[in-house]
Amino acid sequence: MRVAILAHQKFPDRAKTAVGVLRYGDHDVVAVLDRDHSGERVHDFIPDVQDAPIVETMADAPECDALIIGVAPIGGGFEESWRTDVETAIESGCDVVAGLHYFLSEDDEFVARAEEHGVALRDVRNPPDDLTVAEATASEVDARIVLTVGTDCSTGKMTASYELRDAARERGLDAAVVPTGQTGIMIAGWGIAIDRVISDFAAGATERLVQQAGDHDVVFVEGQGAVVHPAYSGVTTAILHGAQPDSMVLCHVAGKEHFGGYERFALPDLSTYVQLYEDMAAPIADATVDAGMVNTRGMDESGADDAIEAVAEEIDAPATDPVRYSADDVLDAVLD
Amino acid sequence: MRVAILAHQKFPDRAKTAVGVLRYGDHDVVAVLDRDHSGERVHDFIPDVQDAPIVETMADAPECDALIIGVAPIGGGFEESWRTDVETAIESGCDVVAGLHYFLSEDDEFVARAEEHGVALRDVRNPPDDLTVAEATASEVDARIVLTVGTDCSTGKMTASYELRDAARERGLDAAVVPTGQTGIMIAGWGIAIDRVISDFAAGATERLVQQAGDHDVVFVEGQGAVVHPAYSGVTTAILHGAQPDSMVLCHVAGKEHFGGYERFALPDLSTYVQLYEDMAAPIADATVDAGMVNTRGMDESGADDAIEAVAEEIDAPATDPVRYSADDVLDAVLD
Repeated sequence: MRVAILAHQKFPDRAKTAVGVLRYGDHDVVAVLDRDHSGERVHDFIPDVQDAPIVETMADAPECDALIIGVAPIGGGFEESWRTDVETAIESGCDVVAGLHYFLSEDDEFVARAEEHGVALRDVRNPPDDLTVAEATASEVDARIVLTVGTDCSTGKMTASYELRDAARERGLDAAVVPTGQTGIMIAGWGIAIDRVISDFAAGATERLVQQAGDHDVVFVEGQGAVVHPAYSGVTTAILHGAQPDSMVLCHVAGKEHFGGYERFALPDLSTYVQLYEDMAAPIADATVDAGMVNTRGMDESGADDAIEAVAEEIDAPATDPVRYSADDVLDAVLD
Repeated sequence: MRVAILAHQKFPDRAKTAVGVLRYGDHDVVAVLDRDHSGERVHDFIPDVQDAPIVETMADAPECDALIIGVAPIGGGFEESWRTDVETAIESGCDVVAGLHYFLSEDDEFVARAEEHGVALRDVRNPPDDLTVAEATASEVDARIVLTVGTDCSTGKMTASYELRDAARERGLDAAVVPTGQTGIMIAGWGIAIDRVISDFAAGATERLVQQAGDHDVVFVEGQGAVVHPAYSGVTTAILHGAQPDSMVLCHVAGKEHFGGYERFALPDLSTYVQLYEDMAAPIADATVDAGMVNTRGMDESGADDAIEAVAEEIDAPATDPVRYSADDVLDAVLD
């Protein structure tokens, strides 16, 4: 699928979704829209992802199949300065994909134009309306199911999932990510934002996703939150039991000692987390924590290496930072 | 509050909500509507709850403040044969309270009439639309927070909560139940059906409920599901961390060995459950499982006593069947 990505005035540092799609997406990115950098190229900023021209408006982008909104303003609103680009996309026959709290499909103007031009408006935060309770049958798929779990939110579970997928593909395996959050969904082009699903159906929604990807050799299910997170543990647990993993990878930000936004609460030790995830999984899925992923961003090499080694020791399993180093050892551990 | 309860053709055996309101509600029940038993009285069927006349239609009921729909057909639909009673209630100035999947507040006819007569249509399954993520502050309330947890769905968590409340009130304590499910909400007249809340806000919704009841001496939070239930564990975990209990009571159906509806999955041992609930609570709330509640319905006295004693031994704490016996020992344990 050929896509353009809207990232006005935020590329690359404040355009997490745009960069994620460029790095991990299976799309052919024909252009990035950023009016502050038109005339430059993606490789001028990020050399190790697919390259594309940066253009000023959708009218300047090569022909493509979809426009992805690749930035999320605080609050998740729609910036009116994007309206012309979205309208141009619709009129060119492009679908529009967004992960905003503001739903394009509830904007009367966009809806009317989209109907007229026969294109889809896909709000990835909006869950399907035919979800049901879990049947606890995810583990019946052919694929090996690997779940990334974390010690907190924002520990690198999505990144770990995609890095593991890429490492598996390099070995010739048919691998996929099962996206459970908005950025992961934008990258993969499918998935369900489990945190927006009503509680009764959250495990069922996860199960459906695993089943949709069940024909691959291995799927990496993007986990969310943490099993004892003060606010989001319900999402984590629903994904754990809905996905029925064969293996788990524990993701941690090196040096982090308290829950982000909830600093009164200390993170449990990593060994405690391993026990918690395994004990919680056991009655429903025979999964162990087989590896660790450590986010060492901002550390020097020796500090990062020490941090990774400390995690490996605490969880008694291989660990790495998959952005800094190869994910191969971790992949070996979870495929075993 | 004076209420009438609609229970047409189902009182008492298939009218769980009606019986719950009669047994545990603080309402003054002025009539039960059951066209199959009009002329009889509640005490003809259930001697140990508040008495009330059984009438044929709402027009036959004494003046009151609200009509409660006290039955739930399979599927949660609205029976058209109830329409006249609901309309009569509205025209008499009564609020109407329902726990159906079918929302009265989306029925144009009811809405128009309710507006005309200035009464409220309260669909208790419909969560408030201003919910937010948890702040993890429930434990700051003055009340002691006791959470009923279970080994499965339908283990008696709601009944245990209300029996404990009543035992506490008998001691002169100012006690309340925090209702998290539809029947509990109908009984108490407030609460949120946590299973209908979107996952991100489920802990926050629980927290709000605890704070709303925070001025009591002790609150008994009605738990849901089970912490490792194949489909509903997310609801359970969100309530556990949102409520931040001081104490937990483990509810179990004597002899039950597999999850209801998920018979491929064995229930963990009770001692494993105690460990799971305590380990999951520990990082967020310093709560232990201090007692057990055993549903021994249908067993003879000696079988029931054996079952209760076995549970007490397995969890190493006092246990009882609060329907069959006094909840006093369990109350002592959770107030300690």
